[in-house]
Amino acid sequence: MTQAWFNGGFLDLAAVHVRPDDRGFTLGDGLFETLRIQGGAAPLLDRHLDRLVAGCDLLGLPLPFDRAALADAILGTAARNGLGDAAVRLTLTAGPAPRGLPRPALPAPTVLITAAAAPPPGGPVRAVIARCTRRNEHSPLSRIKSLNYLDNVLARQEAAARGADDALLLNGAGRLAEATAANLFLELDGVLVTPPVADGALPGVARGELLRAGAVERSLVPDDLRRCTRAFLTNSLGRRDLVEVDGRPLGRLA
Amino acid sequence: MTQAWFNGGFLDLAAVHVRPDDRGFTLGDGLFETLRIQGGAAPLLDRHLDRLVAGCDLLGLPLPFDRAALADAILGTAARNGLGDAAVRLTLTAGPAPRGLPRPALPAPTVLITAAAAPPPGGPVRAVIARCTRRNEHSPLSRIKSLNYLDNVLARQEAAARGADDALLLNGAGRLAEATAANLFLELDGVLVTPPVADGALPGVARGELLRAGAVERSLVPDDLRRCTRAFLTNSLGRRDLVEVDGRPLGRLA
Repeated sequence: MTQAWFNGGFLDLAAVHVRPDDRGFTLGDGLFETLRIQGGAAPLLDRHLDRLVAGCDLLGLPLPFDRAALADAILGTAARNGLGDAAVRLTLTAGPAPRGLPRPALPAPTVLITAAAAPPPGGPVRAVIARCTRRNEHSPLSRIKSLNYLDNVLARQEAAARGADDALLLNGAGRLAEATAANLFLELDGVLVTPPVADGALPGVARGELLRAGAVERSLVPDDLRRCTRAFLTNSLGRRDLVEVDGRPLGRLA
Repeated sequence: MTQAWFNGGFLDLAAVHVRPDDRGFTLGDGLFETLRIQGGAAPLLDRHLDRLVAGCDLLGLPLPFDRAALADAILGTAARNGLGDAAVRLTLTAGPAPRGLPRPALPAPTVLITAAAAPPPGGPVRAVIARCTRRNEHSPLSRIKSLNYLDNVLARQEAAARGADDALLLNGAGRLAEATAANLFLELDGVLVTPPVADGALPGVARGELLRAGAVERSLVPDDLRRCTRAFLTNSLGRRDLVEVDGRPLGRLA
């Protein structure tokens, strides 16, 4: 039986009952982290917990378990499911509440951790630039991994309808922000660049590692896709080459 | 015991268990309607069902029950809770799914209907213009009542922190879009105007009735708040006068 960690303890996933008045379900009031376990370890776990804490701060949500407890729970969920190589997801919501926008004075957050087998490495990506929606760089939600993920779902749906693997999202100003579940990196003039958070890029954990290794933040426009010498998408589950956008091969990769 | 309607039948609300892999909970993949029952009737029920159908079409979600069944369920939920005057909420999500953005080939939507006593009429509203976020007029989600409601939650939180009752949201272009859970109407030069959907206004049902009665859509900017002769916020639960924005009395209401 699949095991999950729910509000402080392990239990059978089938026994996890989310309340119908949970604000994660009613209003998308919460956030999540997806992270990779490899060989039973999660080298970037601290970075994910950093981002989780930052997200809670931004939303004004208390974190009801300390970092050590969450780290144990994350590793334990993978281990109890016999997964040495896993994609683990932690979801934290504002918890149950009566109807209406304001939270209770003392929210009781819901925390759920689930694990799935790590997906196989993805191949090269053919993407489109989403036409159906844009990333909202004016919203602080673009800077956290909130449960408001429906724009990305719609963009991915559009990509599939147009015969592509993924979609790149522009922001309101027409700049490149990110892909639907990954950050975008381009090699331009010998420099590895990625859109800044101010342009609507989620501060991805894998992205953060590349910035620490020398990549730089720079605003990017669709024309940059034509002149780049290399392009890839990266998230916590892996990195994939981006080889085509809107039916045109990228830069010198062509 | 509180009764709810869940996926086709009535049951005790405490027995409603949302699955932890429901895409409404994991990705905000769904939408909702809130409507008013008065004296056991819901005169605008058809308009709400129209919007629900339009939202499902936009999201590419099947509506798993016909309109007559949903109408019965909505009225029945209020009646079974002994509420002649109620705020009823219908939530429809993309249902359970494995991890990842794409939906299953045949989604099995979750539908939940709950009822609460109608809130008492609200008094005059003192609002602020939200600084923390903006409405994304480039997203189709601004045109449906999706579960991605966290920007509005944050704006309302900001309003409370600034000592106000509600917040008005600007769109990315700096135009007025709406309040956090209501549409905005201003009387300008003797004409009742409200921001157009293209500026990020949710096409509210009460708003639709006012447009049918002669109000007009027009782009509005914050300066219009100074020169209006009347202002109010309206949603399916009622109408409230808007008397102050950012600490300044509105127009001639002062």
